Amino acid sequence: MEDDFAQWYTDIVKKADLADYSSIKGCMIVRPYGYAIWDLIKEELGKRFKETGHENIYMPMFIPESLLQKEKDHVEGFAPEVAWVTHGGKEKLAERLCVRPTSETLFCEHYSNIIQSYRDLPKLYNQWCSVVRWEKTTRPFLRTTEFLWQEGHTAHATYEEAQDETIRMLNIYADMCEKALAIPVIKGKKTDKEKFAGASETYTIESMMYDGKALQSATSHNFSNSFAKAFDITFTDKNNELSYVYQTSWGASTRLIGALIMVHGDNNGLVLPPVVAPIQAVIIPIAQHKEGVLDKSGEIKSRLSKTLRVTMDTSDKSPGWKFSEYEMKGVPVRLEIGPKDIDANQAVLVRRDTGEKKTVSLDFIESEVIELLCDIQNNLLKKARESLERKIYKAEDITTFEKIITENKDL
Amino acid sequence: MEDDFAQWYTDIVKKADLADYSSIKGCMIVRPYGYAIWDLIKEELGKRFKETGHENIYMPMFIPESLLQKEKDHVEGFAPEVAWVTHGGKEKLAERLCVRPTSETLFCEHYSNIIQSYRDLPKLYNQWCSVVRWEKTTRPFLRTTEFLWQEGHTAHATYEEAQDETIRMLNIYADMCEKALAIPVIKGKKTDKEKFAGASETYTIESMMYDGKALQSATSHNFSNSFAKAFDITFTDKNNELSYVYQTSWGASTRLIGALIMVHGDNNGLVLPPVVAPIQAVIIPIAQHKEGVLDKSGEIKSRLSKTLRVTMDTSDKSPGWKFSEYEMKGVPVRLEIGPKDIDANQAVLVRRDTGEKKTVSLDFIESEVIELLCDIQNNLLKKARESLERKIYKAEDITTFEKIITENKDL
Repeated sequence: MEDDFAQWYTDIVKKADLADYSSIKGCMIVRPYGYAIWDLIKEELGKRFKETGHENIYMPMFIPESLLQKEKDHVEGFAPEVAWVTHGGKEKLAERLCVRPTSETLFCEHYSNIIQSYRDLPKLYNQWCSVVRWEKTTRPFLRTTEFLWQEGHTAHATYEEAQDETIRMLNIYADMCEKALAIPVIKGKKTDKEKFAGASETYTIESMMYDGKALQSATSHNFSNSFAKAFDITFTDKNNELSYVYQTSWGASTRLIGALIMVHGDNNGLVLPPVVAPIQAVIIPIAQHKEGVLDKSGEIKSRLSKTLRVTMDTSDKSPGWKFSEYEMKGVPVRLEIGPKDIDANQAVLVRRDTGEKKTVSLDFIESEVIELLCDIQNNLLKKARESLERKIYKAEDITTFEKIITENKDL
Repeated sequence: MEDDFAQWYTDIVKKADLADYSSIKGCMIVRPYGYAIWDLIKEELGKRFKETGHENIYMPMFIPESLLQKEKDHVEGFAPEVAWVTHGGKEKLAERLCVRPTSETLFCEHYSNIIQSYRDLPKLYNQWCSVVRWEKTTRPFLRTTEFLWQEGHTAHATYEEAQDETIRMLNIYADMCEKALAIPVIKGKKTDKEKFAGASETYTIESMMYDGKALQSATSHNFSNSFAKAFDITFTDKNNELSYVYQTSWGASTRLIGALIMVHGDNNGLVLPPVVAPIQAVIIPIAQHKEGVLDKSGEIKSRLSKTLRVTMDTSDKSPGWKFSEYEMKGVPVRLEIGPKDIDANQAVLVRRDTGEKKTVSLDFIESEVIELLCDIQNNLLKKARESLERKIYKAEDITTFEKIITENKDL
């Protein structure tokens, strides 16, 4: 990873069975292990969205060309990179449809139909789906033609409420990144040039990769009432006056899996924080043909499975092969148990983040593994925070700036 | 519903806030209440898929024209009804891409890359996504241009294993329909003319709607090795010989929501079985401005919310309006509580399926509501089963057949 970070990244994606290439340019296959991580991220985000009163909805994947064109800045930003459907079966369509690159226009059309009074506000909707943006250069999870994401779309009675929502969701993303992904983030506001096409303000959380590059990890936009004006989304307020709604949107995608790889990974492969690890502990029986080893391993598996995501590898591969395999997959804890351990009523726990080994009594195996997982989760966040802080420099003038850049090759 | 069943159906879809029309022909918006039902169906199916060892995966939404054409019967069946993407941004694509109508071809291409040995089998994959089929006439949930579904795709070493899987999944669908949706089904095999494009055998579960029509509710296909031959998916078997894999696919969609409406609904609206009801009980405070009513209602809500999906309506609408609203939405149990009830330490429970009222003590409110929900779930299945059986007639010859059809206008 020190020599060729880009190649190291691609190798992990393939070797940890996270994703595979497809024959469609720029589109990837999210394999079961990668998808299981995404499912856990969805669970973490979904929980937070629900707690803050958001509801899931599903909009069509197509947008008629005329609808996409309603908001001037928005169409300018997205039209150059959309996929166009021109035929349905053998018939040429009267109007081209684009495959959604994002769904503001569809939500706006729906909101203009269902919002009448202040009693209908706020509308706090979220959608889990895939979107398509025709990209020239692609990399698995980081930038692909089609990607999985969630897009929140809300409508409010006032600018202030919309602004509160924009910041609330930015904070939810930051919280999820820190607590679940063990990735500390820096919150910021985009410049006018970089903000989302059609937004009044765009906020972002940025995380620091191992190679010193920042990765935009989620964004939250306040649209003020510009889309409402373009789509005529009005409501009767408490004083019986007609007013435009204020809107927000916010999104996070499978790119977060790319962040996990580049923040925590090492030369042995992926390193997953326990909260989003599809397998939190793997049991590797040693000398598994010897009497009692498989029975004991199975017993430990059922004990641990009551509260944890645990797997046991009883294949005929060698223990050494299995060690590397689960290291590559970033499984936080490996539990080794052989005949001698069983005699001594113990097992060996190996943590993925530091490689440290620890012999523990089988009597307390559940609490030992859980404590270790908590420790790993905390340690990954701590390490990532130190790495982030180490890569922050202050420059008061351009000369210092240039000097810092030249002297620190990891920047 | 007796006079115009089709209109009654469409009214419920709109009035119960299940779905809305969009400006894209044949595509619908699944609104939060409808989507919440879908989420519960997903949970019920997902649990069963996981228990039988299936893993989730995500494939691209596009299929290159040449890939779709690899299996002769398959392309003949689907090509006439797909949406074609011809442009990415401003560029015309070298090869047209279709938006997936189903993903056999993509799974086959992936399987041909990742399956080498018998050790790699079986592959038990499932995908949750939306698919597009260019339909001439559409109806919300029953037949739409785009719809949400799951598609399972598996690969096995032998025909027998594939056949076992095909039947296993058919049984899982049947089990989910009966236990969760309270819809009894009839399992059957499709004729050669009706089977899935490319399949060796297609099995179906059919359920009986209120108007006497059958609805195909899920299908399960055994492909034998025909796709494997077309896509060259081979593996080295235990005797070190090269062999083609045997495949299956199986799917269920948001059409199941249409079945729920048409099996259980009545002239007051939707009737939902508790297992898939987003709101299992609604609390309606009576004379809510009187002292203590809201406090007591809130207390009951928190007690019930520990195990159930409960909502409380404290809006300024009249109780009568609220009763109709939650009847329309099919909420299984309504709990009414007013000042007199509070004095008597009781509440009134009204069940949606029969309209029966029951006064119960607040001391046992949790168990009273849970028992009632179980009773409703069982009663809906019983009623649906009776309705199914009542609509089955036996005809030994064509004359009897014609006579039965003529004499029974609900057929």
